[in-house]
Amino acid sequence: MDIRFVKREQLKEKPDQKNLGFGKYMTDYMFVMDWTKEDGWIDARIVPHEPISLDPACVTLHYAQETFEGMKAYRTKSGKIQLFRPEMNARRMIKSNERLCMPAFPEDMFVEAVKELVKVEKDWVPSEPGTSLYIRPFMFATESALGVHMASKYKFMVICCPVGAYYAEGINPVKILVEDELVRAVQGGTGFTKCGGNYAGSILGQVKAEKMGCTQVLWLDGVHRKYVEEVGTMNIMFKIGGEIYTAPIEGTVLPGVTRDSIIHILKDWGYKVNETHLAVDDLMKAGHDGTLEEAFGTGTAAVISPVGEFVYKDDIVKVNNFEIGKLTQKLYDYLTGIQWGDVEDKYGWTVDINA
Amino acid sequence: MDIRFVKREQLKEKPDQKNLGFGKYMTDYMFVMDWTKEDGWIDARIVPHEPISLDPACVTLHYAQETFEGMKAYRTKSGKIQLFRPEMNARRMIKSNERLCMPAFPEDMFVEAVKELVKVEKDWVPSEPGTSLYIRPFMFATESALGVHMASKYKFMVICCPVGAYYAEGINPVKILVEDELVRAVQGGTGFTKCGGNYAGSILGQVKAEKMGCTQVLWLDGVHRKYVEEVGTMNIMFKIGGEIYTAPIEGTVLPGVTRDSIIHILKDWGYKVNETHLAVDDLMKAGHDGTLEEAFGTGTAAVISPVGEFVYKDDIVKVNNFEIGKLTQKLYDYLTGIQWGDVEDKYGWTVDINA
Ligand SMILES: Cc1ncc(COP(=O)(O)O)c(C=O)c1O
Ligand SMILES: Cc1ncc(COP(=O)(O)O)c(C=O)c1O
Repeated sequence: MDIRFVKREQLKEKPDQKNLGFGKYMTDYMFVMDWTKEDGWIDARIVPHEPISLDPACVTLHYAQETFEGMKAYRTKSGKIQLFRPEMNARRMIKSNERLCMPAFPEDMFVEAVKELVKVEKDWVPSEPGTSLYIRPFMFATESALGVHMASKYKFMVICCPVGAYYAEGINPVKILVEDELVRAVQGGTGFTKCGGNYAGSILGQVKAEKMGCTQVLWLDGVHRKYVEEVGTMNIMFKIGGEIYTAPIEGTVLPGVTRDSIIHILKDWGYKVNETHLAVDDLMKAGHDGTLEEAFGTGTAAVISPVGEFVYKDDIVKVNNFEIGKLTQKLYDYLTGIQWGDVEDKYGWTVDINA
Repeated sequence: MDIRFVKREQLKEKPDQKNLGFGKYMTDYMFVMDWTKEDGWIDARIVPHEPISLDPACVTLHYAQETFEGMKAYRTKSGKIQLFRPEMNARRMIKSNERLCMPAFPEDMFVEAVKELVKVEKDWVPSEPGTSLYIRPFMFATESALGVHMASKYKFMVICCPVGAYYAEGINPVKILVEDELVRAVQGGTGFTKCGGNYAGSILGQVKAEKMGCTQVLWLDGVHRKYVEEVGTMNIMFKIGGEIYTAPIEGTVLPGVTRDSIIHILKDWGYKVNETHLAVDDLMKAGHDGTLEEAFGTGTAAVISPVGEFVYKDDIVKVNNFEIGKLTQKLYDYLTGIQWGDVEDKYGWTVDINA
């Protein structure tokens, strides 16, 4: 792929690495490529991160024909910069785009675009413990038209921002609200994709959770309102009676890269992993009778997020006395160890941006 | 409301009224207003229709926090320009916004914004039979941020385009595919709103329908995959054994302005209207045993769209010999008569833009 480079007049000042937050600081450059029906993908370029111009009739502003991905670049102690399973994000975006009737952005081009942009932005990859460069590939329709239809023009872009340690003061268990009215996804819908609409529809649940003192929402399936699916921006796993339970990938749940990695590791460590429908009533029962040993979310942002409490209707269940579980901590240390290059990557999951 | 006016250097040339199509020609001006957490709605303005500038991290491009409306301005034979129940669109947008955690755009301001814009654009309201000015109010988040959350900044805009007669050569019955795999909406989701995500998720069904020689998709409910809900951009009604059947407004179906108007008229005409769950099997059975007399979609674009055929799995049902039904035609003539000012508006549904 030939990538055109447009240099910025002046680079931005880099922010304090101890105070990065999430998404506060955009880097200097972005990757852009256009798709038209006639020419396919054209004009790969790395240009200054700056506003784009859209007609008010742009399809994306009305019909949300848009998908995105989320991944990170990690700086190892030796100064090397690595990605984590970038091909998984590339493939997931292709699946999202298929459902949304958007053209595929090829896997090899995706990985190359991310690598090349991170190379240009290498000074933006922070080195403080737990920090990383968050990478946001996204694609959206750019055609101007008011009829609902498959658009004929798209933009693929990658932007990045340095992000702080998710757990500034050590990993912290969170309270989770089991949502029994609002629904995130249903079989036959778009739940398995990272399309904008899924997230717009989920904000109300998030607001409700926060009002009840919870950090996130645990969604139930849309048909029976009974089976545990996933959390706001994480998949979720439970250790019950020594075995692991997590929702299967059957169309409603996002196939998380972290989820897949954790399942690999758990199986290697000898755990039985049940990708199955777990009823919320069984979860609460396990919480009360003491068989629910640990619970944790998995996702790129926090990697592993221990759950300290589930709130479901009038019932509350504490997990492991609101303390991080042994297995949860071990998984966190091991996977973040691989990502930041402190633990041997025996799975070959990390990709050096210069390789 | 104080509306600032920014004049265009040069007005566009008006297109041929016999060849307007849908959404091909945008008018000269647009209405814009901004919302911030601190100031609420500010800076109402009518400005030239031109591209807007968005940061690539704009929430709308990632999480689709966006809603819209669709309505029309009609030119009567006497030259008067009128809207049709604009307050219904205003209220529906408020409901959509509530679900999407977006601020309400007040009803009176909505109607005023539409009226004032149409007044400025009055020469764009076409006079050829069946033509009108399509009006698209829409709202979207403008904040730049990569975390999923309720945005703190929004834009409300109204754009318009003259549109041609929907049925250039007289009303035409359409073929409709009953979709049994893909799902548009589910209880607890966003089906009752006009949010972008609903439409992005529906394109694949539309593509599938077209591949099978059908014009539109008839969606079934997401829980049982059994009950008839609505069509791509129309509600749908059936005349079976002399009575009318249509899906109830219970959270999954868009509460159409045309639907509501047609129900009013039908009741006044002495019809029994059943807003109830009709199973697709019962619909097909009624088609085969001859009790299904007529079927039609209702929506702002086509007003009334007769259905000539339903395709469901391997079963095909023809409606009224693929001819427009008597009641369908009568409803079409009556409602379009009111909208274009040829029939007395005894319901007080039309609103003169100068009133
Ligand atoms: C809805 C949802 N589920 C799960 C995940 C976790 O996926 P991953 O591990 O690939 O970050 C995410 C975040 O990307 C998400 O948005
Ligand atoms: C999904 C859907 N259903 C029904 C309708 C019909 O609604 P209305 O009669 O208000 O145009 C529309 C069009 O607005 C729609 O998009």
